[in-house]
Amino acid sequence: MNDQDFEVTPWDVEGNVNYQRLIEKFGTEKISNDLRSKIIQNAGENHLYLKRDFIFSHRDLDKVLEDYEEGNEFFLYTGIGPSGKMHIGHIISFYFTKWLQEKFDVNVYIQVTDDEKHWDRGMSFGEIEKYAEDNIREIAAVGFDPDKTFIFRNREYMGNMYDAVVKIAQKINNSTAKSVFGFEGSTNIGMNFWPAVQCVPTFFEKKKCVIPAAIDQDPYWRVQRDIAEKLGYEKTAAIHSKFIPALTGPEGKMSASKPKTAIMLDDKPEEVEEKVKKHAYSGGGDTLEEHREKGADLSVDVSYQWLHSLLLEDEDEMKEIAQKYSEGEMLTGEIKEILIDELNKFLEEHQERKANADEEVQKMMYEGKLAQKMWDQKITL
Amino acid sequence: MNDQDFEVTPWDVEGNVNYQRLIEKFGTEKISNDLRSKIIQNAGENHLYLKRDFIFSHRDLDKVLEDYEEGNEFFLYTGIGPSGKMHIGHIISFYFTKWLQEKFDVNVYIQVTDDEKHWDRGMSFGEIEKYAEDNIREIAAVGFDPDKTFIFRNREYMGNMYDAVVKIAQKINNSTAKSVFGFEGSTNIGMNFWPAVQCVPTFFEKKKCVIPAAIDQDPYWRVQRDIAEKLGYEKTAAIHSKFIPALTGPEGKMSASKPKTAIMLDDKPEEVEEKVKKHAYSGGGDTLEEHREKGADLSVDVSYQWLHSLLLEDEDEMKEIAQKYSEGEMLTGEIKEILIDELNKFLEEHQERKANADEEVQKMMYEGKLAQKMWDQKITL
Repeated sequence: MNDQDFEVTPWDVEGNVNYQRLIEKFGTEKISNDLRSKIIQNAGENHLYLKRDFIFSHRDLDKVLEDYEEGNEFFLYTGIGPSGKMHIGHIISFYFTKWLQEKFDVNVYIQVTDDEKHWDRGMSFGEIEKYAEDNIREIAAVGFDPDKTFIFRNREYMGNMYDAVVKIAQKINNSTAKSVFGFEGSTNIGMNFWPAVQCVPTFFEKKKCVIPAAIDQDPYWRVQRDIAEKLGYEKTAAIHSKFIPALTGPEGKMSASKPKTAIMLDDKPEEVEEKVKKHAYSGGGDTLEEHREKGADLSVDVSYQWLHSLLLEDEDEMKEIAQKYSEGEMLTGEIKEILIDELNKFLEEHQERKANADEEVQKMMYEGKLAQKMWDQKITL
Repeated sequence: MNDQDFEVTPWDVEGNVNYQRLIEKFGTEKISNDLRSKIIQNAGENHLYLKRDFIFSHRDLDKVLEDYEEGNEFFLYTGIGPSGKMHIGHIISFYFTKWLQEKFDVNVYIQVTDDEKHWDRGMSFGEIEKYAEDNIREIAAVGFDPDKTFIFRNREYMGNMYDAVVKIAQKINNSTAKSVFGFEGSTNIGMNFWPAVQCVPTFFEKKKCVIPAAIDQDPYWRVQRDIAEKLGYEKTAAIHSKFIPALTGPEGKMSASKPKTAIMLDDKPEEVEEKVKKHAYSGGGDTLEEHREKGADLSVDVSYQWLHSLLLEDEDEMKEIAQKYSEGEMLTGEIKEILIDELNKFLEEHQERKANADEEVQKMMYEGKLAQKMWDQKITL
C-alpha cells in the first residue's frame, strides 16, 4: 500500500489504513513488547485494547513509566468535540482513559471544545450546547473518579485559563499552525488560534501529561511538544489507538453524521440488531458455498474486527471464532449475532449509568475535589 | 508630498504626515463644517481639538448624530496598550472621549490590552501588569463618569466576553487579518487572533459605537465594519485625531521609549522645562538675526503646534502668538516659556487627580453602575 491510498488528518480518515506507515509518517513509536509488559506490570493487569494491539503507538510513554516507577505521577488529558451524538467509536478511548486513571490513580482532564466546533463548522452555540450536555453525560457514564476528573467546556472555563492560552499562543506562529494543520487564508482566525486552546490542558499540572487518542489527533501534540520546554513544562506524552472501522466497512472511520456507519451510544437493542444485520461489512464469501469453501477474510470483516479489538475479552472464545469463521465453519449471520449480543451488553450497562449520571456530572464539572480546585485557581503558567 | 514620504500603520508613524492623503488612503471622511456645527450644537459647546482641526476625520459620525437627534444613544470605546508609562500624546484622546461622554451623557468602555502586549512584544505579564495599573490610574484621572465608564483588562474580563470573541473570530479569516494588519507566517497565532479581541467592545451594546482614536488605528475598525452586520450589530463609527508631533520634531509621533521625544504624564515641572528648552523642535531662524528677519515656520514648530492643537484655549492669545512668532517678533525661547507654563498647568491638575484616583479606579473597574452590570453579565452577541 502506498501513501496515496489513505489520508489521515485530524479531520478525516479515508481509505484502508496502514498503521506501520502512520507510525513512520507521524514519527511516533510502536508500543514494543517491553513497553507493553511495563504498562501491565505497573497497572497490575492487562487491558483488552493493549492485548489486541488496538492501542499500538505512543510518544514518550516509556519515559512516563520510568518517572512513575520513581514515584512521579502523571496526568491524563482527552477531549470531545460536541458536534453530534456520540457513537461507540467516540467512547472507546474514554473507557481506556478511565482504565488508566483507575490503575495509576491519576487526574483526568476532559476538554469539551465548544469554541472549536463553532470555528470549524459554524455550528450555533445552541446546537453545540445541546450536544455538549449530552456528550458530557456519556463521558460521565464511563465511570471516572469524580474527585480526580475535571470535565470543562472551553467557553465556560476560559476565564480561568486565558492567561495560559495567551502565553501558549505567543509561542506558536502562523507558519507552524499552517504546516501542521493545513490552515489556509480562508481559515477563520478562531480556528487558526485553536491549537493554543487545545494545548492548554497539557499545562494544567507541572507533571508529565499523557494523551490517549486516536493517532489522527497526533499533529496537535507535536505543536505542544515544540513549545512546552520554552514555557518551562514537559513535552506531552501520548498513547495512540487505531481507528475503529465503520460498520459499513474497514475503509474510513465511524461518523455520527452517517448513521448507518455507526452504533450510537443511545441505540436501542433492536436498532443495534438491525444495523448490524443490515450494514455490518462482511468478509465472508458471497455465497454459502463459497464461504464454506474459502472462509471469511477476517482483516476486512467488521464484526470480527469490533469483537477482536474492542469487545470480546475471552481469549479462547476469540480464537475459536477466528478459526471457525476464517475456515467457513461459522457463518456471517452467526458472528453478527455474537457482535449484537456484545454490543447490547455494553450499551445496556453504559446507558444505565448514563441515566443515573446526574451526580457524577455535577462532581466532574463543578463539585468534585479536582473540579473545585480547578475553579478556584487561574492557570497562569 | 508623495506616498513614499510617510508610512502609517497601527504600529508606526514615520515622516511628515499628509492628512488629506490619509483620509483618501483609509477611505474615511473629513469632518465637514456642517458636521462640526452639528457636533457643537448637540454637545452644547465647542471643543478645542475640534476648533483647531486636531480632530479632523470620521466614519459615520453624521449617522450617529442623526440617530442621537432622534433619541437613540450611542456609546464610546477606546483603549490602551500597557507597554510603558503614558505620555501626553496618549492621554489627549481620553480627554476628548471624556468630553464626548460628558456632553452626550453616554457609556464609555476602555479596553486594557494586556494580552496583545504579550503577543506583540513578548512582554512579561509582570511588566504588563505594572504598566496596566499605572495606565488605569492615569485614565481614571481624566475624570470619566464613574458610573458610566468600564475600564477592563482583557485577561481579567475574558471569562465574560469569550463567547462574543469566539463568534467574532469565526467571521474574520486569515487573509483579511493578513491584508489589513500585515501579519506574516512569523506572526504568532495570538497576534493573528487579536483583531477579534479588539473588536469585541464594539458589540458591548446594541447601539452605535463611536471610537475616538488617532487615525492610524483605523484599520482595526474596518474589520469590525466588515463583519458587524453579519452578527446583527451596527458598523462602528469613529472619530479620528491627527498625530501629536514628537517634541523633537514634526516627523513621527511621541514615543514613551524615546523619553526626549515626549512629555510623560508624571514629569515634574523642572523636567518639563528642561525637555522643552532642550528638545522642542523650533521653526525659528537659526540665528537671532535670521529669526527677526524671516520669523518662525509655524508648520514645523512643535511648541506652536502643541499650543495650537492641544493646550491653549484662548483664541485671541493664540492668534497673537501666531502673528508675533511668525513675524519674528516673538522668539523661540518665549514661545517655549508659554508651552512650559501650559504643560505644567495641565500636568499639575492631572497629577493631582491621579494621586487621588483610588475610588475612581475601583468604580470604573468593579463597583460603579456600569462596571457592576458588565461583571454581572456574559457578552454573548
